[in-house]
Amino acid sequence: MPVNRRITLAARPVGHPQESDFALDEVDVSSPEAGEVLVRVLWTSVDPYQRGRMSEAKSYAPSLQVGDVITAQSVGHVVESNDRRFSVGDLAVGQLGWQEYATARAGTVRPVPEELDPQTLALHAVGMTGLTAYFGLFDVGKPRAGDTVVVSCAAGAVGQIAGQLAKIAGCRAVGIAGGPEKARDLIELYGYDAAIDYKNDGVAEALRGERVDVYFDNVGGEISQAVHRRLNLGARIVICGQVSQYNAERPELSFHPGLLIMFRARMEGFLVFDYAHRYDEAARKLAHWVASGKIRWREHVTDGLENAPRAFIGMLNGENRGKALVKVAERAE
Amino acid sequence: MPVNRRITLAARPVGHPQESDFALDEVDVSSPEAGEVLVRVLWTSVDPYQRGRMSEAKSYAPSLQVGDVITAQSVGHVVESNDRRFSVGDLAVGQLGWQEYATARAGTVRPVPEELDPQTLALHAVGMTGLTAYFGLFDVGKPRAGDTVVVSCAAGAVGQIAGQLAKIAGCRAVGIAGGPEKARDLIELYGYDAAIDYKNDGVAEALRGERVDVYFDNVGGEISQAVHRRLNLGARIVICGQVSQYNAERPELSFHPGLLIMFRARMEGFLVFDYAHRYDEAARKLAHWVASGKIRWREHVTDGLENAPRAFIGMLNGENRGKALVKVAERAE
Repeated sequence: MPVNRRITLAARPVGHPQESDFALDEVDVSSPEAGEVLVRVLWTSVDPYQRGRMSEAKSYAPSLQVGDVITAQSVGHVVESNDRRFSVGDLAVGQLGWQEYATARAGTVRPVPEELDPQTLALHAVGMTGLTAYFGLFDVGKPRAGDTVVVSCAAGAVGQIAGQLAKIAGCRAVGIAGGPEKARDLIELYGYDAAIDYKNDGVAEALRGERVDVYFDNVGGEISQAVHRRLNLGARIVICGQVSQYNAERPELSFHPGLLIMFRARMEGFLVFDYAHRYDEAARKLAHWVASGKIRWREHVTDGLENAPRAFIGMLNGENRGKALVKVAERAE
Repeated sequence: MPVNRRITLAARPVGHPQESDFALDEVDVSSPEAGEVLVRVLWTSVDPYQRGRMSEAKSYAPSLQVGDVITAQSVGHVVESNDRRFSVGDLAVGQLGWQEYATARAGTVRPVPEELDPQTLALHAVGMTGLTAYFGLFDVGKPRAGDTVVVSCAAGAVGQIAGQLAKIAGCRAVGIAGGPEKARDLIELYGYDAAIDYKNDGVAEALRGERVDVYFDNVGGEISQAVHRRLNLGARIVICGQVSQYNAERPELSFHPGLLIMFRARMEGFLVFDYAHRYDEAARKLAHWVASGKIRWREHVTDGLENAPRAFIGMLNGENRGKALVKVAERAE
């Protein structure tokens, strides 16, 4: 059997993660047991929620322990199957981690349609980040045609899809992102109606003419406080993420609940995992919109599993432009 | 015509209101115009929301100007009617202010059923505070039988009803109030299953064994922060009021929205005025529950319109035990 190279947690990051918080090790690969598959990973994903797993703070999912493989969505080929739902050669996606080979229970991975082009879409627009945008916007935000939908981290993996879904729903989409390149992507690539570069624009001033019906919040902190000043009556605030807080020792108390009385507004958090029974419905629609050009996307690819920590640190710093992915291996083998 | 004694805003309170922020003046009473009624006020109400109207901060309703009569719900007899919906002698309730005589458009006051006993119920259990508890708990909180419902300011005018409605809905009701007398009322009078005296108990510790499904929040600030640590998955936080913040120059940022992801929870603000089309439905039910003993209540009466400011200041300090009311005049005249 081959050797499996893996990226593990070497130390719990304090504040901003460092490369020394990660380790590369090698273990033998063993055959899958009954009901399991062995996957050769081709691509793996880099996402803000991983920061939470590295922390000991109480969260919706158990923390990683030092020595554990870093949690991540990955796509790869089944190279051994001990479950009849998968055959050797099938492409599969799941929470397979930052590693070259992953053993998983067959029920926890999903097949990737062969016609998906490129297949990395299973890690973003048609995968977990697309699904997150879909359920967060439609089920929690409940946009109506004509609504103004504001998205923070709007050029990020979830935000870029949320904005495009808002357009599909007949809304005005306003995106907030950091830097002129991302702001340009918002307008030119993702089709937002307006873009705010929070590094160079005052968010509250830039929103002065808007009445925000839905705020799809990925960032929290000061940027979100500026948006809250422009809510419309009956506003819905979708709490998808709070990336401004992930490196903080304690999250900032950034919100005064009395605002919700003034605007008769609702603020609601959600987790995409709670919608697992509807993934197929949503993934089909997302794949259709991508194929028909209604959802556009950009990837930011880092080559080599060993560079995943660097890609992750850069993503938390906003250095990526498009969905951050790591290429682990070529398809052909 | 008689003279009308009124309590007006003499100065905008800074921090805790003082008696000097109020003035007593006298004006002549004039006859109602077409579509109006003239009401002789018997009882008037003292409620936390009035503090917000005295401030210049942006809110859901226009601020009072210096010299304006203090906004308040009052009950009284119609002494002159220029609208066929009311006859002389009818009892009516509405936003009639802290004054002895009020002229109002007939559409803005509601008749009080003669059989309501005592008629002051129209200012609390069957009036605006009862309606606030009703719509906040049932429409926003959406309790299910078996849920744990926590109420802050639980012995207050809204809170005492919210807890009893939670019991009617088959929930476990846990009340938070200040001081041993109020905590005793929660259990013995209002039928809460558990009472927390925040002045003597640590709220988070006292809630250690609870999983909060619905938090009916009247207080905000530190007490609410302690409740947020005990939320259950899928919790609903009803933002009814934030009385801990009303005397603050700027409201405290007391909440981290990321909590809503962890608990897949919803926080929602509401205003009872948005439910005006359903007041009759709710008031009928509340009156029935009061008559059948399922809703119990306590009044804290201050005698004399001139003492309304003192009653208001005491209520903000938590000195009242039961619904704070001011007796303006005897019924017989």
